[in-house]
This record gives sequence, structure tokens and C-alpha cells, in this order.
Amino acid sequence: MKEGIIMKKINELKEYVRNIDRLEYTYNLVSYDNMIFMPKKALEQRSEVLGYLSTEIFKLRTSDKIKEFIDYFDPIMDTLNDLDKAIIKNIKKNYNQIKNIPEDKYREFMMSAPISEAAWEEAKEKNDFSIYEPHLEKMVKFSREFAEYYGYEDNKYDALLNIYEPGMTVKKLDKIFGELRDGILEILEYIQKSNKFIKRDLLKGKFSIEKQRELSKELLKLIKFDMKAGRLDESMHPFTTNFWNKDVRVTTHYYEEDLMSNIFSVIHEGGHGLYEQHIADELVGTGLGTGVSMGIHESQSRFYENIVGRSNEFLSVILSLIKNKFPEFKDVNLDEFYEAVNYVEPSLIRTEADELTYSLHIIIRYEIEKLLINGEIEVKDLPKIWNEKYVEYLGVEPKNDSEGVLQDVHWSDGSFGYFPSYALGNLYGGQLLSALLKENENAIIDLKNGNISFIDEWLKEKIHKYGCIYEPEELIINATGEKLLTKYYLEYLKKKYMKIY
Amino acid sequence: MKEGIIMKKINELKEYVRNIDRLEYTYNLVSYDNMIFMPKKALEQRSEVLGYLSTEIFKLRTSDKIKEFIDYFDPIMDTLNDLDKAIIKNIKKNYNQIKNIPEDKYREFMMSAPISEAAWEEAKEKNDFSIYEPHLEKMVKFSREFAEYYGYEDNKYDALLNIYEPGMTVKKLDKIFGELRDGILEILEYIQKSNKFIKRDLLKGKFSIEKQRELSKELLKLIKFDMKAGRLDESMHPFTTNFWNKDVRVTTHYYEEDLMSNIFSVIHEGGHGLYEQHIADELVGTGLGTGVSMGIHESQSRFYENIVGRSNEFLSVILSLIKNKFPEFKDVNLDEFYEAVNYVEPSLIRTEADELTYSLHIIIRYEIEKLLINGEIEVKDLPKIWNEKYVEYLGVEPKNDSEGVLQDVHWSDGSFGYFPSYALGNLYGGQLLSALLKENENAIIDLKNGNISFIDEWLKEKIHKYGCIYEPEELIINATGEKLLTKYYLEYLKKKYMKIY
Repeated sequence: MKEGIIMKKINELKEYVRNIDRLEYTYNLVSYDNMIFMPKKALEQRSEVLGYLSTEIFKLRTSDKIKEFIDYFDPIMDTLNDLDKAIIKNIKKNYNQIKNIPEDKYREFMMSAPISEAAWEEAKEKNDFSIYEPHLEKMVKFSREFAEYYGYEDNKYDALLNIYEPGMTVKKLDKIFGELRDGILEILEYIQKSNKFIKRDLLKGKFSIEKQRELSKELLKLIKFDMKAGRLDESMHPFTTNFWNKDVRVTTHYYEEDLMSNIFSVIHEGGHGLYEQHIADELVGTGLGTGVSMGIHESQSRFYENIVGRSNEFLSVILSLIKNKFPEFKDVNLDEFYEAVNYVEPSLIRTEADELTYSLHIIIRYEIEKLLINGEIEVKDLPKIWNEKYVEYLGVEPKNDSEGVLQDVHWSDGSFGYFPSYALGNLYGGQLLSALLKENENAIIDLKNGNISFIDEWLKEKIHKYGCIYEPEELIINATGEKLLTKYYLEYLKKKYMKIY
Repeated sequence: MKEGIIMKKINELKEYVRNIDRLEYTYNLVSYDNMIFMPKKALEQRSEVLGYLSTEIFKLRTSDKIKEFIDYFDPIMDTLNDLDKAIIKNIKKNYNQIKNIPEDKYREFMMSAPISEAAWEEAKEKNDFSIYEPHLEKMVKFSREFAEYYGYEDNKYDALLNIYEPGMTVKKLDKIFGELRDGILEILEYIQKSNKFIKRDLLKGKFSIEKQRELSKELLKLIKFDMKAGRLDESMHPFTTNFWNKDVRVTTHYYEEDLMSNIFSVIHEGGHGLYEQHIADELVGTGLGTGVSMGIHESQSRFYENIVGRSNEFLSVILSLIKNKFPEFKDVNLDEFYEAVNYVEPSLIRTEADELTYSLHIIIRYEIEKLLINGEIEVKDLPKIWNEKYVEYLGVEPKNDSEGVLQDVHWSDGSFGYFPSYALGNLYGGQLLSALLKENENAIIDLKNGNISFIDEWLKEKIHKYGCIYEPEELIINATGEKLLTKYYLEYLKKKYMKIY
């Protein structure tokens, strides 16, 4: 009898949570349309509708009803099965995170974000930080306030980190990123002393956009992205989004003079896309049916982009696809192609960075965000500190803000705490590679024949299918037997670059 | 003091109605994505989300809160301004229409419709009515039940007509369509007796899709469709949808062997699109910010497609646009082009029908729907009665159901009562033309120079900008000084075809 009552309550909860998920599906789809298809003049009306939808979601997430569910299940959690437990833990986490934010404040934030994003775009185009400055100040103010609402134990920035990487803290990250930075700088020093000359001219040419579009589809097919449960669209900045697990959309960009940019964008976004497509059907609509954190998400995209995509083995397949379309490449041999693609050079723009120095770009942003959120620096200080850090870490100095502090969209909508995900993704990826090779030492070698099935299955079974059931740390321990350690990724990098240089 | 309280209540009502409108905006956008962009495997999950959204809208439209608003304002309607009055009349109309439908029934209907539509598509492709039959039976059952829920005075079918054309009844339509049918048949008889030979070969060729796409954009620009507040996409069946007045989307289809199909589809949908783009900003979000009825909507699309688009004057502009792109047309002269485009021949497929016989296709559907909804025939009888009526009215007989009863999508989602809109649109259009020419006898002649400004402004001022403020009959009286009469359209047809034949 008692059990019957609990079951009824659980079903009631599930229906409630499913409605939230349906609204989020909707919100994400409307946002996607915003970014890809919407005509210009619709911006204001569209922002109103998105503001409405996000407020409705907010209301459902913070309602008395949710509080009632939490209070009801809290004392009987032990009697529930794993899935139900995870569903409740998840709504509780969301509830506790945002319950203190006043609805009006939240709506104001949601309405300001797209306007700030538009200001960033204009500022970047005109190379004028001052256009962006007042909007960014507003976003920083929101983020500092929200951090207080979210709550934290140690460092205010922890509250924001926790949104993108549940369980992550400044204390942990300082250690992890310290090791990562030192390890990368050591390899970089080795490379800069090397006499190795790498030809890069062979990547140059003029590449028809139409053929690049075809190539993108071939690449997605190669990594087993399901086009019947997804789409490929175009946007200035590539990204991935999903509406549950059967409609996963990746975007890319095309440059006539740069064939590689699209290739690795597509594989990167495809990696995000596979994660979402592989999530178990039973998690759809439960609040758990999506990637668990941005760090784990980036581990998948960067695994595909770099560990798979920039491997000698997989590049042999890519090269033959390229040769089929672009006769300019007919005399390029695999080794020189591999080296050209993996050429290392400290540079200014994160999204164009090589695999090795990429994480340094992230660490710079991490250090700046930490200072900014804790009020140790202000928005007006950003251009200066940005340039100083680029000189310090990468030995290069932006000539203007467009190639400096204005290069990324992330801060414009208040996504402070997001950047660390990229470097965490690299680290998770290295550790996953090590575990995966222990089970099948040929997993990478087999890529030579385009055979990616083992990797596809392994990542699906160890990571993807679980959605948000496990927190990142638990997920990584289950998959690799250990907490996140920096050594695996650094070993991977060392081995790779020692061989090339 | 009293006024202050009423004002507060009105603002409360407006916010409530705006939320409904925001959800409808969302629903329409998600549906559009469904039709244009969605990957195949997403269908089931997407249907769930659409079902959810439509149920939420349904709940808001039939809530106790709405009832409370209606009861509050009913006794004091006289004290309100016109806009507020119209807002309340509109929610009341919606409430009374659907309040009796049980929520579960409504949800079941909304979930069944896309499945039925998919079955129709398969049936049409395979030319097998039996695939569609059980689904169509379900839709007919829903529609008959809904007609009872909606309520009617005279004829059950009136309840459905009223959804698409407020105020329309079988009694009125029998008269109107009777006159229309007789008038058309008279002209048709004249044509069939004529010895006039019209060359049609000149329209044939192979036309690059890419160039057709460019042409479509030029045509939309020509009729002043604002591409910054709209888009052009592609779908098998062209249609128009809008998300308020700043994001209006029209679709078309391209056939390499048929240049005309796209041209008139684009102009037709562009006419729908202009209506929505011209609606006054102050009506957005009030429930009144969209076209008032499908009949008035079709009057705009068919006005642009036929009265403008197939006029000798406008065709001269179209022909020169065509000549710029397709050298095959370089020797075609305007008069032979005009005649070829306006060639009359009774045929099987509604969407390919000429301007004259088009309405006969509609009258056939009207007569069948009337019988079906009133239970005088059943779904199984449809193929036979369809073919009989085509022989009777048009003198042609479908060889199979794909070119017969399976040709239209409309019944598959239960849109019974919609078809008459097309013929009503023709009639409204003829009456508007007559009124417009009284104000400016050169309105059509000026099209020769691509000058469409007078028509654009006139329709905007007389029809478009009012959205749903006036019911169709009131709107037409305001615009033309008279209730809908068949004589204007029939005069237009007679004049046109007597001259050609």
C-alpha cells in the first residue's frame, strides 16, 4: 500500500519533470532558430518569447510543487531505484541552485543577454571595446549576484564553475591547471628548441564551399553521426545543440581559403553530437537526458577532434576523402599532412590554436574570470590584463582588442565558469584514451581503415548513455578507475609531440 | 477610482492573452521546424512536445481565469475602447468554441494528427487509399465530435466552417458557391466553344534550380515582401507561416522542368506573407495580430497570384526577370506569354488548376465535406464520390486515387471546413479589385512598370493592418462598401477570359 502511494508520487514527479524537459526542448529549438534561421527584424519579438519561455521554466524549477516533491522524497531516498534517485537529486540540485534568485532578476538577465551578445558582435567587428563595456559590466554584475544566490563554500567563482562542471572548485582547478600549464610549457619549450622544419604550404589552396559541404557530411558519416537523428547547419561560430536525443544539430563554417577549419570543426561538433545521440532513450524527458557537464561534453568533442581526428591513422582516411574532392592534394603524403596539421605555434586566437597550446588560452581565461568574479579586477581592466597574460603564457601580444579580449562570445551572455570546460575536456579525454587503450591497444591503429566502431561503442557504453545519471567525477571513475589526473593527457601530448619534433 | 480598477483588470487580461500568444508563437515555430528542418527520427519526440505545447495553449484558453475575465467584462463592454473590446470578443469566441472539448480528447487529437498526416503521405506515394483510410476515419470522427462541442445552429458543418471563416454558414455558402459554379461553368462553356489556339510550348525547358532560387527572391522583392522580417524556405507543398509580424516565412518548391510552378507559388505565398507583415505592431501579442480568417488570407494570396501575378501588366515585369536568367525565353513575346500562362483546361489536380476552373475543385471538396461531416457519406465512399464529382464538374476522371482523393493534405490533420477559404478568397479578391480600381483606375496598369505601391498600400490600409479586429464580413464592408457578392469576381473572370478566348 505504502509503495503504491510512493509510486504514484514518483509518477507525478516524472510527469512534472517531463513538462520542464518539454519546455527546455522548446526553448532550445527556438534559440537555435534564433541563431541559424531568424530574420533580423524579429530579434526584439523573439527575445520576448525566449524571455517568456525561460521564465516559465524557471517557475517550474522553483515552484512550491518542486519543494514539496523534494521534501517528500528526501527521507525515503534509500528506498528508491537508481534512476528515480538520480531524477530527484537532479531537480534538487537545480532547485537549490536557483531558488534564491528573484524571478524579476532572472527575467531581466535573460532579456539582457541577447542584447549584450549583439553589442559584443558589433564591438568585435568595429574593434571597439567601449561598445561592449557597459553590457559586459552588466553581465559581470549579474554573474556576481547570481554566484551569491547560488551559494558557495570557499570561493565565489566556485558557484559559477559548478553550473558547468558539477563538483568543480577553484581549489581543485588551481592544482589541475597548474600541472597542466607546467606540463604544456615544458613540451612547448622542447618544441621551440627543436630544429624540425614543418611544411605548411601544402594545406593552402582555394576550396569550393560546395565540395566542403559534401566533405562535412562524409566526415560526420565516418564518425557515425546519425544524420536521420540530426542535421548539419552553418553558423559563424560552430556549435552543437540538441532537442532530446533524436534531433541533434551541429553547425560549422566554411572558408574558401581554409579547408582544415571546417574539417576539424565538423569533427569537434560531431563529437558533441554523438554524446547526445547516444544517450539512453529511457533518460529522455527525465531531466537526465543530456550531457552531464560541459567538461565531459568537451572531452567528447575534443577526443574526436584531436585524439581521433588529428591522429596519423585517422588523418590517412581524411586525406583520402580530401584527395577525392580536391586535386590540389593529390601529391600530399600522409606524414607531411600529419605534421602540417599538428604544427605547433603559440598564437592569439583560441579557436585557431594548435592542440598543444590550446589549453593555455583556457588557463588565461580561467585566471581572469576568477579575478573578475571575485571583484579583484573590473571590466575596464580586461583589455590590459588579457594582453599581459598572452605575453606571459604564449609570448604573443594582441595588436587590438578584436584579436584579444573581444575574440570570444562567452562572456557576453554571462557564461562565466564555462571556459575551464575546454581544458578539462582535454584532460578527461587523455584519461579516457589511456583507459580505452588498456582494453584494446589497437583502438587508434584501427582508425587507419576508418574503423571507429570500438571507440564509438566504448564511449557510448562508458560515458554517453548515462546522460546526467552520474556526476562527472563518478562517471570518470567508473570509466577509467581513477579520479581526474593530469598525467594521462600530458603523457599523450608528450608522446605525440616528441615524435613529431 | 472605478476606472482605475477596470484598467488594472484589462492590463491583467492583456498579460494573460500575451502569454497565450507567446506560446502560440512558439508552437508555430516548432511546427515550422517540423515541416522544414527536422530530421526523420525526431518525429515521435517532436509530436510529444507539440502535443504538450498545444495542450498548454488549450488550458490557457479554457481556464477558469479566462471565464472570470469574460464574466467580468461582459456587462461593461460598452465602456471599453475598440481594441480592448476586440481582444475580449476574441478570447470569448475562442473560449466558447473549445470550452466543451475535454482536454484528453483534445490532446489525443493533437497527437493523432501528425501520424495521420504521415499515413496520408505514404498512401499518396504508394497510391493506396487503404493505408490512409483508418486514419482519415479517426480524423472524421474527431471532426464530427468537435463540431458538436463547438456548437452550431443550423448545420453541423457550420461549426467547422466557422473556425476558418467566422460567420460563414452552409446556407450562405450554398448560395454563393451556386452562383460561382454557374458563372464559371458559363465561361468555361464559352471557352470550350472558342477556336482560339494557345501555344504552351514556350513555357517548356530545363531551368536551373539555383537560378529559380534567385528569381524567387527577386519576385518577393518586387511585391515588397520584407526579407528582413521573413524568410524563403523550401518544402514539397508551399505554405506560409508567421511568428508575429516580424518573422514571416514562405516556402516554395522547385521543379527543373516547370518554371511557372515556383513563380506563382512564390507570389501566392508572398501575398499571404504581406498580410502578416503588414499587421499593426500594436496588435502583436493581443490575440488579434494575425490574419482574421483563411478566406481573407486566401483573398490576399490569390489576389497577388492571379489578379496581380497573372495580369498582362505584371507578367511583362516577370517576363523580363525571366529573360535575364533564362536565355530560352529571349524570343518569347508578352502576349503569347500572357496567353500561355492563362490557358484554361479542366484538370485533375487542384494545385495545378488554372485560375478559372480552380474554384470548381474547391466546390467539389465543399460538397463532399458537407456530406461527410453530416454523416451522409463515410470515408470508404470518398474515392468513388470524388471521381464522380470530377466527371460531373470538370469532365475529367482520375485514373487513380493519388491524382484523386489522395491529392490534398488538408483532411489528414482534420482541417475540414478549410477548403471553402480558397474559393472565398477568389471572391473577396474580385470584390477588392473592383473597389480598388474605383479609387485608382490605373492600379493594375501601373504594374507594367513594376509599380505595385498603390495596391500594396491600399490592401495594407483596408485589410492587412487590422489583423483580427474586424470579422471578415465587417472588414469587407469597410473596404468595399458591400457584403460579399459573387458578381465582382465573375465580372473580372468574364472580362479576362472573353478577351483571351
